[in-house]
Amino acid sequence: MEIIDSIQKMQETSNRLRREGKRIAFVPTMGFLHAGHLSLMQAAKKNGDVLAISIFVNPAQFGPNEDLDSYPKALESDLAKAKAVGVDIVFTPTKDQIYPDGFETYVQLERLPHHLCGLSRPVFFQGVTTVVTKLFNIVKPHVAIFGEKDFQQLAIIRRMVNDLNMDIEIIGGTLVRESDGLAMSSRNSYLSDTERKEALRLSQSLTKAQEMVADGERNSAALSAMVSAHIGDCPMAEIDYISVCDPDTLTEVETLTGPTLMALAVTIGTTRLIDNTVLIPS
Amino acid sequence: MEIIDSIQKMQETSNRLRREGKRIAFVPTMGFLHAGHLSLMQAAKKNGDVLAISIFVNPAQFGPNEDLDSYPKALESDLAKAKAVGVDIVFTPTKDQIYPDGFETYVQLERLPHHLCGLSRPVFFQGVTTVVTKLFNIVKPHVAIFGEKDFQQLAIIRRMVNDLNMDIEIIGGTLVRESDGLAMSSRNSYLSDTERKEALRLSQSLTKAQEMVADGERNSAALSAMVSAHIGDCPMAEIDYISVCDPDTLTEVETLTGPTLMALAVTIGTTRLIDNTVLIPS
Repeated sequence: MEIIDSIQKMQETSNRLRREGKRIAFVPTMGFLHAGHLSLMQAAKKNGDVLAISIFVNPAQFGPNEDLDSYPKALESDLAKAKAVGVDIVFTPTKDQIYPDGFETYVQLERLPHHLCGLSRPVFFQGVTTVVTKLFNIVKPHVAIFGEKDFQQLAIIRRMVNDLNMDIEIIGGTLVRESDGLAMSSRNSYLSDTERKEALRLSQSLTKAQEMVADGERNSAALSAMVSAHIGDCPMAEIDYISVCDPDTLTEVETLTGPTLMALAVTIGTTRLIDNTVLIPS
Repeated sequence: MEIIDSIQKMQETSNRLRREGKRIAFVPTMGFLHAGHLSLMQAAKKNGDVLAISIFVNPAQFGPNEDLDSYPKALESDLAKAKAVGVDIVFTPTKDQIYPDGFETYVQLERLPHHLCGLSRPVFFQGVTTVVTKLFNIVKPHVAIFGEKDFQQLAIIRRMVNDLNMDIEIIGGTLVRESDGLAMSSRNSYLSDTERKEALRLSQSLTKAQEMVADGERNSAALSAMVSAHIGDCPMAEIDYISVCDPDTLTEVETLTGPTLMALAVTIGTTRLIDNTVLIPS
């Protein structure tokens, strides 16, 4: 496994791999790797000849009152996990390389960011689309994999790749959960034991929503009310949003007529957690 | 010479050329080709194995009160000129292909557009950087050439390519003038005979500025005053801006201490013309 920390070296490596006719699969991450990330890498391994990942905590996607400075890091352990799952190249650029003095170019979408997480995190998606564009131009992958836990991010990346005619296949990786249902996330590491128990309310709500839809519920407000009550019962939980929306446009729907996204963002203590599921009325 | 009007076919062609180890040189244009464009193509021919050009009048870079509908077109004549200068591929996408329903992604810079032409044309540079990013992803050139007449555009493209880590060499083509000094531009075709004579005030002012600097003038205000008087003398001329600025940041300078850009935008009748020169105090 090769560790590359220079943009120039990474781009030269990708150029060489392409000249050799190799298909590059890419998983960008912010490190502190968990089973969710590793499942993306396993999917990537099946989709290319060479598996490259990046580890970069991207300052541009953190708001001024967010957790940029405390975001968890564990590079040595990340490298061991990456090696174990068959990663060929780990790209670890520094902030000064990615955002040198004078940097001023941004990639942004007009509509998709104005829903869900984009409403409480106004700079987030511009930070994501800008850094992902840069990483794509550096790593030059044929295929890239993003997790479905960050559903809005995946939708935005798909739209960006399409709109800007990037010649890259985007694959979504199925959401991975802990054995008790909690959606895997690097930020779960912030939770105290008590908070960790209360955090299950997110996944439990979504399971209940699936059951209600299987039993015939088609009214979004009824589903949202159930979730709101289940999470609101917990004094340390603060709901950011409960959304029942079109999975492509992310606009709210009143009635389920086809596959519908239910997405949540809840702060447990001081930790903001998200989760989602696609409800399929049959 | 191959004419390609589909994005998919263009991208497949570029992929094939790259697999064959060919170096792709690219000149994006809005058509109505003149000697300025052709000089860019001649420079491109020396810098690659295959010369591709695009002809696309980009709606996203025209403001609501600008000349999108009247922008001059002459495709047959353009194709003949391109063939004569050795173009291998002409890419002619339609507006619906470049901006399909649902398009919402833009590339924009924070600072460089807030000078010169960007002040009177607020959507212009975002339109340019977005379409050029798309064209670069479709045509996948190794090198691309942009004319120095559009000095701010060239500076913005260079910054964008650098900031987004695009693996493309950007070359500036020297400004080409008519025999009487008028900077070549597709929009010169709008000028009546009288307006065409008055339009020479732009290039004459810049020549005079060069002479003043050669004679020792270092004060920007003195240079601007000369230009303002020479152009202001003409009742059909309206000055948009006269700028004496740093060629890299485009910020105004009071005193010439090194290579300095003098850039003008003047409306003659109803036609907006630009011109520029780099003053070099010795």
